[in-house]
Amino acid sequence: MRMVDLIIKKREGHALTREEIAFWIDGYVNGVIPDYQVSAMNMAILFKGMTEEEVINLTDLMEHSGETLDLSNLRGVKVDKHSTGGVGDKTSLVLGPMVAACGATFAKLSGRGLGHTGGTLDKLESIPGLTIQVNGDRFINQVNKIGIAIAGQTQSLVPADKKMYALRDVTGTVESIPLIAASVMSKKLAAGTDAILLDVTLGNGAFMKDINQARILAKLMVKIGNGLKRDTRAVLSNMDEPLGLAVGNALEVKEAIAALHGEGPEDLMELCYIAGAIMLEQAHICKDYEHGRKMLEECIKDGSAFNKFLEMVEAQGGDVSYILHPEKFAVAKNIVPIYAKEEGYVKAIDALEIGLSSMTLGGGRETLDDVIDMAAGIMLNKKVGDYVKEGEVLCYLHSNKNVTLINRVAKNVADSFKICKGFVEKPKVVLEVIQ
Amino acid sequence: MRMVDLIIKKREGHALTREEIAFWIDGYVNGVIPDYQVSAMNMAILFKGMTEEEVINLTDLMEHSGETLDLSNLRGVKVDKHSTGGVGDKTSLVLGPMVAACGATFAKLSGRGLGHTGGTLDKLESIPGLTIQVNGDRFINQVNKIGIAIAGQTQSLVPADKKMYALRDVTGTVESIPLIAASVMSKKLAAGTDAILLDVTLGNGAFMKDINQARILAKLMVKIGNGLKRDTRAVLSNMDEPLGLAVGNALEVKEAIAALHGEGPEDLMELCYIAGAIMLEQAHICKDYEHGRKMLEECIKDGSAFNKFLEMVEAQGGDVSYILHPEKFAVAKNIVPIYAKEEGYVKAIDALEIGLSSMTLGGGRETLDDVIDMAAGIMLNKKVGDYVKEGEVLCYLHSNKNVTLINRVAKNVADSFKICKGFVEKPKVVLEVIQ
Repeated sequence: MRMVDLIIKKREGHALTREEIAFWIDGYVNGVIPDYQVSAMNMAILFKGMTEEEVINLTDLMEHSGETLDLSNLRGVKVDKHSTGGVGDKTSLVLGPMVAACGATFAKLSGRGLGHTGGTLDKLESIPGLTIQVNGDRFINQVNKIGIAIAGQTQSLVPADKKMYALRDVTGTVESIPLIAASVMSKKLAAGTDAILLDVTLGNGAFMKDINQARILAKLMVKIGNGLKRDTRAVLSNMDEPLGLAVGNALEVKEAIAALHGEGPEDLMELCYIAGAIMLEQAHICKDYEHGRKMLEECIKDGSAFNKFLEMVEAQGGDVSYILHPEKFAVAKNIVPIYAKEEGYVKAIDALEIGLSSMTLGGGRETLDDVIDMAAGIMLNKKVGDYVKEGEVLCYLHSNKNVTLINRVAKNVADSFKICKGFVEKPKVVLEVIQ
Repeated sequence: MRMVDLIIKKREGHALTREEIAFWIDGYVNGVIPDYQVSAMNMAILFKGMTEEEVINLTDLMEHSGETLDLSNLRGVKVDKHSTGGVGDKTSLVLGPMVAACGATFAKLSGRGLGHTGGTLDKLESIPGLTIQVNGDRFINQVNKIGIAIAGQTQSLVPADKKMYALRDVTGTVESIPLIAASVMSKKLAAGTDAILLDVTLGNGAFMKDINQARILAKLMVKIGNGLKRDTRAVLSNMDEPLGLAVGNALEVKEAIAALHGEGPEDLMELCYIAGAIMLEQAHICKDYEHGRKMLEECIKDGSAFNKFLEMVEAQGGDVSYILHPEKFAVAKNIVPIYAKEEGYVKAIDALEIGLSSMTLGGGRETLDDVIDMAAGIMLNKKVGDYVKEGEVLCYLHSNKNVTLINRVAKNVADSFKICKGFVEKPKVVLEVIQ
């Protein structure tokens, strides 16, 4: 078998067999097949696509290109949740404790933020003392004891994806739906849970801008997961504006704490209730969706979800006094309000621009080596559909950077709010459920 | 500027500017842009194509990626001829001396054979003593003195093409017409002649299998050449069956010598007359095509074309006694006839199979390191359109290999002849002229 013949086969629009995909992935991970052949293959796939069978094989072979987590020693149905990324997306911090409080086993490996999107690991690390290095037995023991852990992914999982994603990033092949699906799902499957809930974000702050494309991606990932014997479902969620009000690491943790007290922004709460009820169904804990939703509402009301979060923070070495007294979190030196220049309804808030601005204020990283300022970010005061008077605060910039930089960001943030005279309805946060 | 953005731009179907192509080609030659980005770019070009302006810029920038030949010290209009490759294609050996005998300046850099196609340099080297290492002043002096030289391409010409062609070969991007055109034309332009006649071969023994594709390639190369200020014209020639009767290095040189005496096979003579007359027009030596053709017929009749070949062989150190007495060329130990199993008209001779069989018999190379047996090859006794009786010889295999191998080849060669009962017309050798 020669890699060049497989590239030509794909270029001509034919499907690759499992043996051919194995030849490619094994050869690539072992260094026998060079980057320049894989980049040509990826570009051919971008143009010619893959059949469902091909993507399932690719995902399976990528999943098994390195170690996989064995969660068989964990009690109950293990559920995981994955978002394709967004701005202000602190869902895992709220949803995880909620479903764990209801009796599901939430064993999650998470990632870091890059560019305009945040990462759950960074957010968690804004809690003093908390570690995300919860590996091996410690991970298993913590989950068995309290039903929840959120840890960093170890280097040994899915080496094929690490190599391939870095290559796609510099060769213009990130946008291929089969390759996105295989990348996401190989990592989720290697993480060993029984059930996966995918949150496919959609809008200008998300990777997917088009609902048809997002739906195709979500359906494909659901097919892959179920094809490889995991109960996989998906929601399409709105990422045209940031999720909730807080963007930035400590700011988002504080918002997550409020949400666990039942005082979170409406869209965040709604997303957690819908996604959570599906996850409780997947974990066979509730009779049906409505029952699941009621259980979740109850765990917020009775404080058990908040207590679960406390338990997790404590188990991972975090200082729980910050969770009990969120006012302890360090606050940025400069908090700059952005005022509305006109009266009307907020029609749009450019999530991408808000994400990039938060990054520039110190709240995110441009390259993986950058250090994050946990206090930096943006607090929205208005969301799409809100009415605003001239001179009212639209949002606050939080930053420890110099005033010149903040003023430059302020201009962009102000421009990212669109205000109009006519009535604007509040958008739905969950656009579709795919299962 | 970032290469990944240029890849995405091309992937989305947009045209690259000259500056962008320069960034790519300069960066690639200088080792700043890696193979894996160029292979992704090439695959995107294969799918999305290039505008004429893009291909002209690419060709020009590739041409100037290294040294270019300065032929300004040569007298007269310098003409060159290039074939896209075929089986039994000894045209340059006949056509060069013909047009030089008529007063054109034939300064040609040529290549070696690979796979089923032969190379002019290998054929010339079957003449004992002859060198193709005719570089710099020696090349200029020889052409100024006798009007003709056929030399090997030096390493310093068009490094971008050397690097890119090797990459395309292993990444499934050989078949892109803009990339083929830029590759061929950058080398031809760097070789410094004023006029170029392209022989775009077409058929199962050629790179182009489809007349529409061949026509597109020929027209594009003509546009590139003229766009870069060289008089460029093209013929489309038939490569469904081998050209002439001889396939293999010394066998083809002997056929070329016969052709220079006016005794060559009909298709070879016709191709040389048509292509030669166009070249004489390009060199402003004849009034019109008809006049050019008469001049060529005359130079065959009066022996001046043959004498020009003798002069060239002598100038390049070859033993002219072989040219004067072709029976001196070494003959293979085994000469095996292939007989017709049925009576009828020869409908087809698979040129690709004949080329590959000749290679297997020792007459070609599978990799660039293989050593060629100059005496090996295949002599056709029948061509398409010939009538053949049962038991008549279709062709002879010439080889110094063992009988087992020859017998295996014999089977394939026999199968490559298709014989039918109905009348078959002799195919035209030149299908179209593009100028």
